[in-house]
Formats: sequence, structure tokens, C-alpha cells
Amino acid sequence: MGKILIKDIYLKGKTVSILIEGNTIARIADRIEEVSEDTEVLDGRGKAVIPGFANMHTHAAMTMMRGGKEDEKLQRWLSAIWAMEKNLDDETVYWGTKLACLEMIKTGTTLFNDQYFYIDSAVKATSEMGLRGVHSYVFLDLNDKEKIESQRNMCAVEYERSKSWGPLNTFAIGVHALYTVSPENIVWAFDFARKHGLKVHIHLSETYQEYMECRGKNNCTPVEYFDSLGLMSSDLIAAHCVWLSRNDIEILGRNAVNIAHNIKSNLKLASGLNFKFRELSDAGANVCLGTDGTASNNNLDMLDTMQITALVQKAWRNDPAAAPLPELIKSATYNGYKAMGLNGGHIKEGALADLSIIDIDNYKFTPNINFDANLVYSANSYCIKTVICNGRIVMKDRYVEGEDEILSQVRRLYRKLWV
Amino acid sequence: MGKILIKDIYLKGKTVSILIEGNTIARIADRIEEVSEDTEVLDGRGKAVIPGFANMHTHAAMTMMRGGKEDEKLQRWLSAIWAMEKNLDDETVYWGTKLACLEMIKTGTTLFNDQYFYIDSAVKATSEMGLRGVHSYVFLDLNDKEKIESQRNMCAVEYERSKSWGPLNTFAIGVHALYTVSPENIVWAFDFARKHGLKVHIHLSETYQEYMECRGKNNCTPVEYFDSLGLMSSDLIAAHCVWLSRNDIEILGRNAVNIAHNIKSNLKLASGLNFKFRELSDAGANVCLGTDGTASNNNLDMLDTMQITALVQKAWRNDPAAAPLPELIKSATYNGYKAMGLNGGHIKEGALADLSIIDIDNYKFTPNINFDANLVYSANSYCIKTVICNGRIVMKDRYVEGEDEILSQVRRLYRKLWV
Repeated sequence: MGKILIKDIYLKGKTVSILIEGNTIARIADRIEEVSEDTEVLDGRGKAVIPGFANMHTHAAMTMMRGGKEDEKLQRWLSAIWAMEKNLDDETVYWGTKLACLEMIKTGTTLFNDQYFYIDSAVKATSEMGLRGVHSYVFLDLNDKEKIESQRNMCAVEYERSKSWGPLNTFAIGVHALYTVSPENIVWAFDFARKHGLKVHIHLSETYQEYMECRGKNNCTPVEYFDSLGLMSSDLIAAHCVWLSRNDIEILGRNAVNIAHNIKSNLKLASGLNFKFRELSDAGANVCLGTDGTASNNNLDMLDTMQITALVQKAWRNDPAAAPLPELIKSATYNGYKAMGLNGGHIKEGALADLSIIDIDNYKFTPNINFDANLVYSANSYCIKTVICNGRIVMKDRYVEGEDEILSQVRRLYRKLWV
Repeated sequence: MGKILIKDIYLKGKTVSILIEGNTIARIADRIEEVSEDTEVLDGRGKAVIPGFANMHTHAAMTMMRGGKEDEKLQRWLSAIWAMEKNLDDETVYWGTKLACLEMIKTGTTLFNDQYFYIDSAVKATSEMGLRGVHSYVFLDLNDKEKIESQRNMCAVEYERSKSWGPLNTFAIGVHALYTVSPENIVWAFDFARKHGLKVHIHLSETYQEYMECRGKNNCTPVEYFDSLGLMSSDLIAAHCVWLSRNDIEILGRNAVNIAHNIKSNLKLASGLNFKFRELSDAGANVCLGTDGTASNNNLDMLDTMQITALVQKAWRNDPAAAPLPELIKSATYNGYKAMGLNGGHIKEGALADLSIIDIDNYKFTPNINFDANLVYSANSYCIKTVICNGRIVMKDRYVEGEDEILSQVRRLYRKLWV
């Protein structure tokens, strides 16, 4: 792998140069001269560098269903989505994930935490696009005896297969949710994860219905239920966590659980808007951000997600000082990498070279009194011009290889889901 | 003025051609051939046409303060903004409005309802940029005897001057708010407006504090106060209206008042999030959307505004079916034109030629199952490629004349406000 030198770029109020060697940010200094003939030099003038975003909860191939069902009550929406998902196959997941990766690259995401079906196809797409993906094998058995058994076997098979996935893709365990997975498989899946040092990715306390049903059935909250089984840890990535008791927050904090907050999905599906960002952070949880799938978002844009997260925090707390910018940006970048045990999501020497170069010579960044505020509240993802993931340029001046084919394949295939 | 022919463009599920003659959409048909030699032909393939947005509440030149004060409690934020506003002059308002117009053009807004100072400079900027602006002379006297008198005189002078503003700019009366304008000037200003057939633009029931203070002082709500003076009518554009009683909604509806809802500002300043979109529409009010100024938004992007309006409506109402797309889009386009008594904000024969041509051959519109959903929930304003206002192309393939100079002038001048 060659070297990349980004010259004269804006970083936190200063102009610096950044040298990337292999997959790592090797040096940051006021001035760095070309170090060798094979160094690719990028002109950073009029531009700023930001860390790659970590999208901590998505179902990538759902891009195939973007706009598929709108303005419907939750049950009708879910029925429509499930009907479409029955028609998924390797081809649709492959091209759907390609489109998702294309979109994530265009919007500056370098790491994503995926939970979907046909994961070999999702992994293939992610590898080809050059992004960093965490893909979980999803347990979802609806207490069906046959599935309970077969999913364990398939999980073990998939885990073996994952050893040849290459450096950018990581295998994880997906436990869909408390109400869709049998108690015995929940325990089995967490055990399997612990034994093999894997992360676990779950939906947790997303809706009021889920929260109340669990209380009715188990006499405890969903968080308490998982805790009673000893399943809370910093290896857990819990998506949503909208409905929480005080004790839930304490449990999630004490165990340093990683929370993926998905504001756009929570608003659009009316799951709830008063996510306890401050309480969870203060308690010790690692609050990250995610987009959820495009069926409920409808994009994978982390700039959108950051903005709306911050705006809604301010509003529901009745405090314009809620959601300070540095903390917000950290939740969309560094915290996600931390959840995955990676040194990334920040521009530091020694960190993974996952970053974006963004144009600030435009109206969105004028005047540039407060760069972070312009990024979050004024800009949109078109400002993102060049994206580097794992030391490799995956988008240069907004060009991503193979883009046209992805669009035409998705246009050809999405109808398969509507049979 | 020549003719413009847009060929083979997507409009509501069909491919059509659109002929613009003068400032009007003259013809929409499956096929239209070039009509004369001076016809400018635009290729609509891979593109869609949408009406221009009407931004019904802004303070354009506040672009100068974008990001100037962030994450602060309301009183500290207000103090900082007022301190900056003291340093405004013709030059800063002129270039600030130019930047605002540049941003509005780039994001597809063709009509805006402005309320700010040094309006001659704002009008000059708007005319040069080719947008349709409504500029109100602002009453804001804080019960100061001298100002009460002088503002009346200046208003009359400005009104006379406005007769030479040209066709794109309209004079209106601004009454800042109930708590900043003396009762005698409120009555005088509305009388003046009625006498000359002018619209009135006010801030109304924006914060809980305003609502409660009025009840304490006048034993009625702000809406009831204006109503008791006989000032409610369809010539009124009332910005915000966040805090409303049932009787307020009834009053606003019965009088067909135009409401400018500014969700991003309401969230960011924590004014309130449960705007009564449905109740106001059902009662008969004309609900429009706005951005407010960039000091509290921090952009003038109506796509952003539409998306967040819809998401928050769904969430606070606990109903994913709230905010149906056609009604939402109408509130951002047609309803604003209607408020101003203009036949625009829709793509119809005979309507004003205020429209945008947007690129749909990209990942944001793939798949294109639901164009409106893609526009509101997936796209960003970069999709907007060409903007036509009053039959004139003001942006072509994202190029706006004079853009670089605007950015450099603002960068030079914004520091003047920080003295």
C-alpha cells in the first residue's frame, strides 16, 4: 500500500498536513514534504478533514425498499416490510448492500454495524466497496423449534466462514429482539459470542409496546431481563433504547453498554423522541449514533442524523444548551469505533486512516465562525469530497468506482421484492 | 424575455415538456417542439421538476451570524445576537442578504418573506439575485416614545420608496412582536397595512414565556390579544404560533391566517416541538413553512425544513401516518404563494414560472418507488441543479453568477458585527 499525503488542510482551527502510511495516520504536522515517489498528494486548501462516521445500527440492504411504504400506521408498515423481506435473496442483498455502501461513502461513513440476512453477500459487497463492516448473524426464531436448532448450526457455520472475510469485515452475533428470539437461543447466542470474543448487536426497548409487554410478561423491563441473564457488557451494541426506567439507565451505564441511537427512525416510526442521551452518557454508557435501515429513515446520512439528534435533544429537554457540539460529533465518530474496539473515529497519529475531506469553500461554511456548527447545522453531505477508509481512497472528488452499475442493478432488481 | 422549454422531465409519475413564456408556465404537454429561435432548451432527462419553495419566515442577512453563538441558554444567545445586530449597516445587510439569496437559490427557494433592518439594501440584493422577496418595514419600539413616532414616519417614507422596487420585491408591514411593539403602534401599523393593501408579518406565540406573560398582563393569549384589536385576517403572516390554546386555533382558522412554522428554529432554541399542524389546517389556517434566520437554524434549506417538520409531527403525535407527503410539500410551496396572493408554488399552466429542476439519477432517488418520499426524506439540496424564478434562470447546473464575490465579501465583513 502506498502513502497518502494531505497537504494544508483545516483541522480544528489550524492548517496541518497529514501523512497516511498503510492503514494508519502516521503523522500530523504543520508541514510535511512528499516522503517518496509513490506518495499520493491531496491538496487540502479550502478543505477540512473530519473523522469517518460510524453508523452503529443499520440494515444495509434495505436500500432496496427506500420509500417503499410511507405515511402508514406501524402495523401496516411492518407487514409491508416483512412481505418484501420474504423475497430477499443473495442477489438483492448484494446489490442493496452495494447501494448502501455507495451512499455511506458519499456521506462520509467508514464503519457500519449491520444486521441483516444473506450476510455472505453483504460481506462481499462491503469488501468490494472498501468499507469497514460489522455483520451479525441474526437470531430470529419466533420460538419455532426447528429454527431454534437450525439457526445455531448456521451461526456456527457462518462463524467459521467469517475467518476468510478479510480485514475490513467482522463477524458478530445478532439477537434480533427480546420478543422475536426464544429465551434459550438468546442465552446460546450470547454464550457463543463470549466464547469467541464477538460483539452482540440487538434491538432493545425500541417501542413503548415492547417495553410494556415485557413488563407484563416478565415482570421486568427489557433491559432488566437481559441483565438478569448476565448479558450486559461493553461487548453489547444495543440499538434504540428509547424506553428506559431509571434502573435501566443505571444498568446500561454500569456495564458500559454501547447504545446506538437512531433518531430519524425513532421519529419516523413514532417510537419516541425523548432519548436519554445525557443520562446514559453520565451513567457510563457509550452513546453512539445510527441511521437504522432506509425503509424507516430513508437515508444513511450521518450528517442528517447528527443534526436531528442535536435539535431534538435541545427541544425535548427544553434547553438550547443540550447536545454540545464536541460531544455530539464524538458520538457519531469516535464512540462507534470505541464500541468495536478500534482506534479510529478521530484524527490522531496512530489511529486508523478512516476520514473524509470536505469542501469548506462554499456558502454552507460562510462565515466560518464555528466549524462544528456549520458541519452539523448548515452543511449537507455533498460537502464531503474525498473519503479514505483503512488508508485507501474510496471516493475521490465525489467519484466512486462502479456507481452507475449499482444504480442500474438496483433499479432492475427492487421489483423482485414486490412480488 | 425569451422562452424556456424544458423537455422530457419527470413530473408526478409522467414525462412531460414544459414551456415557459415570460414569467409564466405557458404549456405542459407530453411533447412540445421548439417554438422559436430564441427558445432556451433544457434537457430534462434523468431529472424532475418541482415548484419553487416559499420560505415564509426569515431574517435573510443573519447569514452574517451563522454559527455565531451555539449551545447557549436562550438569554445569553439573545444578548449575543442583539449585540451583533447593533453593528449592522447597509453594507452588512446587503452582502448578508446576497449570501442568503445565494443559499436560497442553491436550495430551491424562489419566494421568501423577510423581516429585517436596512431593507433598501436587502431589496437591492434580492433584485440583483433575481428572487421574489417580501420585505417588511419592522416596527420594534420597546415603548420608546421617540421611536414610536419616528418609526411611523420612516414606515411611510419607506412605503413611498417601495413603489420603485420593481416587480420581484413587495413591501409589507412588520410588527416584531406583542412584547416589543407599543399597543398604539401595533394598531397604527395594521391600519397602515389595511389602508394600502399590504401584508403584515409578525412573530406570534413563539415561546412559553411570551404566552404566559401575555396572559398575566392582558388576561388573554397573544392570539386573543391581536384578535381583540380586530387584527386577524388572511393578510397576516404569523410566524411560529407554537403555544396556542384551543380558542387560539379557532381564531387563527376562522380568519384564515397564514402561519409560518419554523421547526428547526423552534427545536434549536427549545421553543417547543408540538406545533399543531393538523389542528390549524383543519380549522382553516393556511400553514406554511419557514427557516427563520440562520442565527437559529443555521441554514435556509427548505428540504431540511420539510423533512424535520414531518419527522417531528409524526413523533410528537405518536403517529407514523401524520404529515402526509402531498400536504407537507404543499405547505412548503403552494401555501406560501397563496399567502402572498400569488399564483405560484405549483407546476400548472398559467402559474408563475418559479421552479427547480432536480437530478434524480443518483443514489438518493434509487429506487424511485416514491418520488415525494425520496425528495423529503432521502435527498439533500445538492440534487437541485437549475432554478428558475419569474421565468428567468437564476442557477444553471448549480452555477450562480457572482457566487465567489459574495463569499469573499461576507468573509471580509462578518467581523464588523463582533466589534
